Amino acid sequence: METSDLLAVEEPLEIRIAGEPIAVTMRTPGSDHWLTAGFLLSEGIIGDLGDVSRIYHCGRPGTDEFGNTVDVTPAPGHSFNPDSITSSKRGTLTTSSCGVCGRQNIDDLLDRLEAFSEDIFVSVDLIHQAIGTLNRGQPTFNATGGVHAAAIVTLSGETLSCCEDIGRHNAVDKAVGSLLYRDSWPKDATILSVSGRASFEIVQKAAAARIPVVASVSAASSLATDLADQMGIILAGFVRGDKLNIYTHSKRVT
Amino acid sequence: METSDLLAVEEPLEIRIAGEPIAVTMRTPGSDHWLTAGFLLSEGIIGDLGDVSRIYHCGRPGTDEFGNTVDVTPAPGHSFNPDSITSSKRGTLTTSSCGVCGRQNIDDLLDRLEAFSEDIFVSVDLIHQAIGTLNRGQPTFNATGGVHAAAIVTLSGETLSCCEDIGRHNAVDKAVGSLLYRDSWPKDATILSVSGRASFEIVQKAAAARIPVVASVSAASSLATDLADQMGIILAGFVRGDKLNIYTHSKRVT
Repeated sequence: METSDLLAVEEPLEIRIAGEPIAVTMRTPGSDHWLTAGFLLSEGIIGDLGDVSRIYHCGRPGTDEFGNTVDVTPAPGHSFNPDSITSSKRGTLTTSSCGVCGRQNIDDLLDRLEAFSEDIFVSVDLIHQAIGTLNRGQPTFNATGGVHAAAIVTLSGETLSCCEDIGRHNAVDKAVGSLLYRDSWPKDATILSVSGRASFEIVQKAAAARIPVVASVSAASSLATDLADQMGIILAGFVRGDKLNIYTHSKRVT
Repeated sequence: METSDLLAVEEPLEIRIAGEPIAVTMRTPGSDHWLTAGFLLSEGIIGDLGDVSRIYHCGRPGTDEFGNTVDVTPAPGHSFNPDSITSSKRGTLTTSSCGVCGRQNIDDLLDRLEAFSEDIFVSVDLIHQAIGTLNRGQPTFNATGGVHAAAIVTLSGETLSCCEDIGRHNAVDKAVGSLLYRDSWPKDATILSVSGRASFEIVQKAAAARIPVVASVSAASSLATDLADQMGIILAGFVRGDKLNIYTHSKRVT
């Protein structure tokens, strides 16, 4: 039977810094400034929006490619760390030794980011609630079945942001980026919940955004679990129905 | 209750050509030569393994990073196209105009690859069978719930390859790469079935491997559908139970 169906839109976004391309990601168009801000934070290129003069679409409106390139101008007196930019270029890790390993990735992050303190506790109920937020905030998924979602929830259960994107990482970058656009970063951003797997990069993004708990509907990877363990991040997976797995710091789950 | 759980392993793999890093991917270790060969084919860097002298792990065995870097040496008298290498670096698309767009990506591919002829027909039953192959070929998924799978199936229903990886793209690259390692490319490689979404890159990989049908358990994106339409690829999504959606060239599905 022939019928019509809604598809999730996928288009490339090129992110540039002062005109120089640093990354391309396949994303669902919309909230590109959030996506860009969240990406730059997670890569350690910016600390907050005070480092940025503006994030804007470049090109000529009306042409095919308009809306698919974003340029970031550093704030007056700011310059971005070229080393961070280089290593953030996906696919061009600069390593002096022959080879990369997961341990190196974790060590690099631990050099840059402080581990979370051991006095953060969350309840199982709150983790389920944070995952439940994803269902309510997924209009595009409900229509197309083709996108991921990420939400950031406070310790009291308030949803600070919930964003969708065809890419898991992009949904997280958008959710984090939307908080960067607030007047100040909410101090009680506690749980990052994601609809897809908890991979290394998802836990890395939580660490960079100073969010101490990651909850995933699906599985966690070995490297994600290692990173969460060392960063003091509580990592929960397969949060479905009334069940969940706690992979790290389970003594801090009440 | 505390219990033990198996996790899907995730580690970075750096791919180098003659010593120069061109890409890093987070993958499940194992079959790295297949992954590398499939990746190089899909990026248009090699046509077959005749272009390659060897693909090998570099570094010193026993060190942490050993096994996470692969170096590719061109065959004697061969050199890889530096333009392909540059554009294959994820995150560093070289565009002369200001901006990228999905249409450009499709046009670039159509310049490089011929569209499939209109005389390839498949049955709904065969598409279901190709998806069914994924379930039988997923030992790691069955243990961990944390990986994707990709299979390549012939017109007569034979499974030519089925590979797992924590990354959707990597599972496809491994399945394609395993066929490159055969004495000759099987002429009847007909369906690429994938456990995750059918995104632009998945259809691109099918096009590069000359596989005329793509079947996905999950949704197809808008750009994947546009590409499949123009390349003459039959694209099926949400292949579950006895149902499926045909997004492109449905007149060739019997």
